[in-house]
Amino acid sequence: MAGNSIGTLFKVTTFGESHGLALGCIVDGVPPGLELCEDDLQKDLDRRKPGSSRYTTQRREADEVKILSGVFEGKTTGSSIGLLIENTDQRSQDYSRIKDIFRPSHADYTYQQKYGIRDYRGGGRASARETAMRVAAGSIAKKYLQEKLGITIRGYLAQMGDIKCELVDWQQVTQNPFFCGDEAKLNDLDELLRNLKKNGDSIGAKVTIVAENVPVGLGEPVFDRLDADLAHALMSINAVKGVEIGDGFAAINKRGSENRDEITSNGFKSNHAGGILGGISSGQTIQANIALKATPSIEIAGQSIDIHGNTVEVSTHGRHDPCVGIRAVPIAEAMMAIIIMDHYLRHRAQCGDVKPVAYF
Amino acid sequence: MAGNSIGTLFKVTTFGESHGLALGCIVDGVPPGLELCEDDLQKDLDRRKPGSSRYTTQRREADEVKILSGVFEGKTTGSSIGLLIENTDQRSQDYSRIKDIFRPSHADYTYQQKYGIRDYRGGGRASARETAMRVAAGSIAKKYLQEKLGITIRGYLAQMGDIKCELVDWQQVTQNPFFCGDEAKLNDLDELLRNLKKNGDSIGAKVTIVAENVPVGLGEPVFDRLDADLAHALMSINAVKGVEIGDGFAAINKRGSENRDEITSNGFKSNHAGGILGGISSGQTIQANIALKATPSIEIAGQSIDIHGNTVEVSTHGRHDPCVGIRAVPIAEAMMAIIIMDHYLRHRAQCGDVKPVAYF
Amino acid sequence: MAGNSIGTLFKVTTFGESHGLALGCIVDGVPPGLELCEDDLQKDLDRRKPGSSRYTTQRREADEVKILSGVFEGKTTGSSIGLLIENTDQRSQDYSRIKDIFRPSHADYTYQQKYGIRDYRGGGRASARETAMRVAAGSIAKKYLQEKLGITIRGYLAQMGDIKCELVDWQQVTQNPFFCGDEAKLNDLDELLRNLKKNGDSIGAKVTIVAENVPVGLGEPVFDRLDADLAHALMSINAVKGVEIGDGFAAINKRGSENRDEITSNGFKSNHAGGILGGISSGQTIQANIALKATPSIEIAGQSIDIHGNTVEVSTHGRHDPCVGIRAVPIAEAMMAIIIMDHYLRHRAQCGDVKPVAYF
Amino acid sequence: MAGNSIGTLFKVTTFGESHGLALGCIVDGVPPGLELCEDDLQKDLDRRKPGSSRYTTQRREADEVKILSGVFEGKTTGSSIGLLIENTDQRSQDYSRIKDIFRPSHADYTYQQKYGIRDYRGGGRASARETAMRVAAGSIAKKYLQEKLGITIRGYLAQMGDIKCELVDWQQVTQNPFFCGDEAKLNDLDELLRNLKKNGDSIGAKVTIVAENVPVGLGEPVFDRLDADLAHALMSINAVKGVEIGDGFAAINKRGSENRDEITSNGFKSNHAGGILGGISSGQTIQANIALKATPSIEIAGQSIDIHGNTVEVSTHGRHDPCVGIRAVPIAEAMMAIIIMDHYLRHRAQCGDVKPVAYF
Repeated sequence: MAGNSIGTLFKVTTFGESHGLALGCIVDGVPPGLELCEDDLQKDLDRRKPGSSRYTTQRREADEVKILSGVFEGKTTGSSIGLLIENTDQRSQDYSRIKDIFRPSHADYTYQQKYGIRDYRGGGRASARETAMRVAAGSIAKKYLQEKLGITIRGYLAQMGDIKCELVDWQQVTQNPFFCGDEAKLNDLDELLRNLKKNGDSIGAKVTIVAENVPVGLGEPVFDRLDADLAHALMSINAVKGVEIGDGFAAINKRGSENRDEITSNGFKSNHAGGILGGISSGQTIQANIALKATPSIEIAGQSIDIHGNTVEVSTHGRHDPCVGIRAVPIAEAMMAIIIMDHYLRHRAQCGDVKPVAYF
Repeated sequence: MAGNSIGTLFKVTTFGESHGLALGCIVDGVPPGLELCEDDLQKDLDRRKPGSSRYTTQRREADEVKILSGVFEGKTTGSSIGLLIENTDQRSQDYSRIKDIFRPSHADYTYQQKYGIRDYRGGGRASARETAMRVAAGSIAKKYLQEKLGITIRGYLAQMGDIKCELVDWQQVTQNPFFCGDEAKLNDLDELLRNLKKNGDSIGAKVTIVAENVPVGLGEPVFDRLDADLAHALMSINAVKGVEIGDGFAAINKRGSENRDEITSNGFKSNHAGGILGGISSGQTIQANIALKATPSIEIAGQSIDIHGNTVEVSTHGRHDPCVGIRAVPIAEAMMAIIIMDHYLRHRAQCGDVKPVAYF
Repeated sequence: MAGNSIGTLFKVTTFGESHGLALGCIVDGVPPGLELCEDDLQKDLDRRKPGSSRYTTQRREADEVKILSGVFEGKTTGSSIGLLIENTDQRSQDYSRIKDIFRPSHADYTYQQKYGIRDYRGGGRASARETAMRVAAGSIAKKYLQEKLGITIRGYLAQMGDIKCELVDWQQVTQNPFFCGDEAKLNDLDELLRNLKKNGDSIGAKVTIVAENVPVGLGEPVFDRLDADLAHALMSINAVKGVEIGDGFAAINKRGSENRDEITSNGFKSNHAGGILGGISSGQTIQANIALKATPSIEIAGQSIDIHGNTVEVSTHGRHDPCVGIRAVPIAEAMMAIIIMDHYLRHRAQCGDVKPVAYF
Repeated sequence: MAGNSIGTLFKVTTFGESHGLALGCIVDGVPPGLELCEDDLQKDLDRRKPGSSRYTTQRREADEVKILSGVFEGKTTGSSIGLLIENTDQRSQDYSRIKDIFRPSHADYTYQQKYGIRDYRGGGRASARETAMRVAAGSIAKKYLQEKLGITIRGYLAQMGDIKCELVDWQQVTQNPFFCGDEAKLNDLDELLRNLKKNGDSIGAKVTIVAENVPVGLGEPVFDRLDADLAHALMSINAVKGVEIGDGFAAINKRGSENRDEITSNGFKSNHAGGILGGISSGQTIQANIALKATPSIEIAGQSIDIHGNTVEVSTHGRHDPCVGIRAVPIAEAMMAIIIMDHYLRHRAQCGDVKPVAYF
């Protein structure tokens, strides 16, 4: 089963390589009657876009998305929606050096072994450039969920290296290039990134994504639980190595009496579960964390082999983010939106429409 | 899309409630010619089975599995395999008390809200009893992977509460009821569980699962990466709140120069990635961790509401594991086996058979 | 992708061989709250059951179905429904003769070549016995469609050999063993079958299935059109060699001016299209015909080879229907019900609930 | 489940409306290493293309396809392949007249009722223009099947109105605009079409498609039989109302002794089954027929209603084929190629590679 699709009823299928002609996507299953134009997608694409701050890769891509189908006179028709972004700033010549080399901790080695052939230009299909289409498709889901159900999905940088960033203020998240919700940490983040740039190194990060106002009832027993599908979607983002729902790994050393979420007639007293019980949304805020590794595209030379098995030294002097976790924020939002949208449609299929307001 | 299936080519679909007549499963896509009998499945089922030690629920279920189809004269035929386990020790009377109550942190509330109806006996479909069928189906995958490809999949308890259990010896894992690989920790674990029993409380846990000798090349860009599908499968296990591949959340504060896995002509120098690069198996050992929350089925009374919205106190005096993480070991192994088997078949479809030995 | 499933949201997965221990089925995606008991399924199973008249195989199977899950206190819960029918009258000894022989026009040859192994007892998985589970699953769909949407699905024998049977009276269809709607043809049918029995031969048939009161709007562009999915479902029935929607092959020599269905303010003036336009139900009666070949299980000896390539003569003296088309009626009804149910759920997912009454 | 995809492992997803900006397609699951360029697709696209003879619509579309991804240095990489055809000759003004009208026997009525909104320009998504992408995707399958397995897939016009066209010579099929294999019928066909044009009418047709040299073993019991999947794929083509495999509806009045395909040590003595037994390819030539209705887009006025329910007269003076069956030949070939390709990959997944030569 070919792996370039996600979602079942809200189904997103993508194509495109880092240095190919274009990136594209088909979004199938969008309900008819949603007002939709390119600007709706562009806003999120601009948040993910390379070159948008000095902390991200200096590749300059307009990332201008075109809607090719499925929208008529400003509204979705229920037909499949084709999206296209042309690649403009490809600079393929940058990559000829690495044609025969397996960059350590990149997908070069595994793609070559799997397929016997590899588009080595900028990582080809394995490049994070592919995530532009996730963001575009996710924007459609976000818009539908917001307008029709009042669901808000948003994320922030929760940690970079050792710097933990509490969410002090959602407003703040939109006002700095780090998606950081704590103004007090901006200097530290800036300093860390300058330091990494200077040393030619990179760093990992943690991103938190939340969905507020999700109705109770989304998720399907027993394998397609909402948390399981979220884990799939979030782990499919480049560089993600861990996913938590609610308390996540902190649950290991909590007792049942500490970890449970008691219920009163006014609602839940806590949300250790992260808004999902038995794989089904509880009406509480859904909360997920992801861990992103540091990109291995760094200037500090590392050891590897070429396709002939010869030992080589690899260092990357291209245009790369010192912390790929930053730009993961809109991508992770998009993935959460796609999954919640998909489960909304799945719920509607089996059980009829949700009640937009929960029990309490 | 109904959620009771997992896998695409190696496809497992299950049914059955905690206190229904039977649990069942259809495994579709099994290659023909594999020797298979009920004993092959029973071994793993016995490892998961309730009542197998004083540390697990005292519900007594034989969990005897019957193969109803798809095997002829001792070999798989390529047809769908029907599996059945009859429920014997149901004691439904135990549960009439909780008929109208939403037990906190259980799925009672979300099932009721989603479906408008709920089999309240023992949690119905949301009960961990459902995992018996995962283990049975997973055993078929495990056997195939072991016999045809030499892949070994196994797991151990990595942490319970604050007690960390290193893997000292795989042999040890099979010799104690905790699936613990460090003999030195057995007394601590025993003491913790006694203490929890005495206090009517429960505790979370961490389980590690590894797959050794996996060929390079399994996994599908870009959404059905091997790590993404593992995250889905593992997060779908009851009580799991977090999934890590390789270093997982520890990658957050590692630099690119620390976290990358350099390559030499003898192979990889480290395995921070946990055996997966770009979503494709690298030929290294695949390593995943899962975090399990403490079961909310405890004796210590907690606050909740009933279906009429009245405040109630809930405490559970039934037959429950103080640490559900223990029995999660064979379940998590089964889920990893199903996913790797599925991706082996997917790889064979698109790329032809794998090379059983990796590059090095 | 394993082939033992049909439907996407109303999803039916089956297992079981002709002479295995049991036949089984999982129906996933059934909406909660439907009243359902075994009798609801048994009625249709009894219509398909072997040994129910002297015109069908004399194998005696009770075909008693058990509901193992997904129903609680008489109502569906939304969980997967497990169904089981134990095989009782297997007489495997009858089949040892054909162990090494490829019966002409049976699946013996293709199963052996595909899988390298074959359950030769009664055709194994390729036996029409498998259709019992289709009928059981279809009954759930039929009941839902009838009760919730007022849709009626039923079929009749339209032709056997050269004998054409018009639908004169639906009542008549239920009163003879041929599912024939024209009392005047009963003697001819009886005579033909006696003659075939005497000569040890068999005959083909045509079956018509209709769905009345289907709301407008079911079906998905462009590949999963309602007619395309019906064609798939009907062609998947054993011995079916052709499928028509509406006028079918008669459309070849009709002009556009003859074949079109004009519309007035009172509705359509004709129904050449068979109730489907552009792959979407129009609100008119859906009409499909299927052609079934004569079973090759006949007494008249025919030429074939054995698994070693030796020439052999094959004749079948077992228990077989001289016209398998007769019992295809409830099977075809079941398949149509499954597809319409599936598309109802799919429609509800993307577009919200249907309007039960059409435009007119 | 959104309906714009076909295939499971060789998966084709399309988008695009008749008068939108572009048509597009993602082909996922293509094995790596296949030589592929735009010319490979263009050949078949040119056979389907409008304006290619005076017998087809005079809409002038270059139908120039671009490969946007998945091919690197002339070979497929295993990544998803994005295809794009820009619409050039749209003339949307032609269609404003029919904005509010339900053209009889078109999908106008059902799309409007299903979605509550409709792209009325040229039929929008329901236009046969959509089939261009089927042809493009099918060409990839055809090329793979031909080069790697020696399978040839081709079709011809078998009947138009009352004119039956035997296949006398495959060579002839490529030399006339009717895809007719009998030179003796060319004048009759020409005369019929001139007559229809003069009268502003249209006519139905029958098309036959065959696949030669298909290995034994393709097809999946029990629902995804090769014949069932072919029926689905062929019935999904616009205007198709019937599908036959092998003898099809002629099997109704054949006896078992006439209809069976006996086997000798040199192979099958006949091919009534059309190359498929028990849903699995037998190694014989696969043969399917489809019936296409006459297009309702004719000049002869017909009765209908508008979206307000008012009675209107409709006649079509646009650019339309008097016999849409002609251009269905390359489309039906493409659909057969997609299904056989998909089942080849499915077979390889479960059973390993096929033996390219059959038993005999």
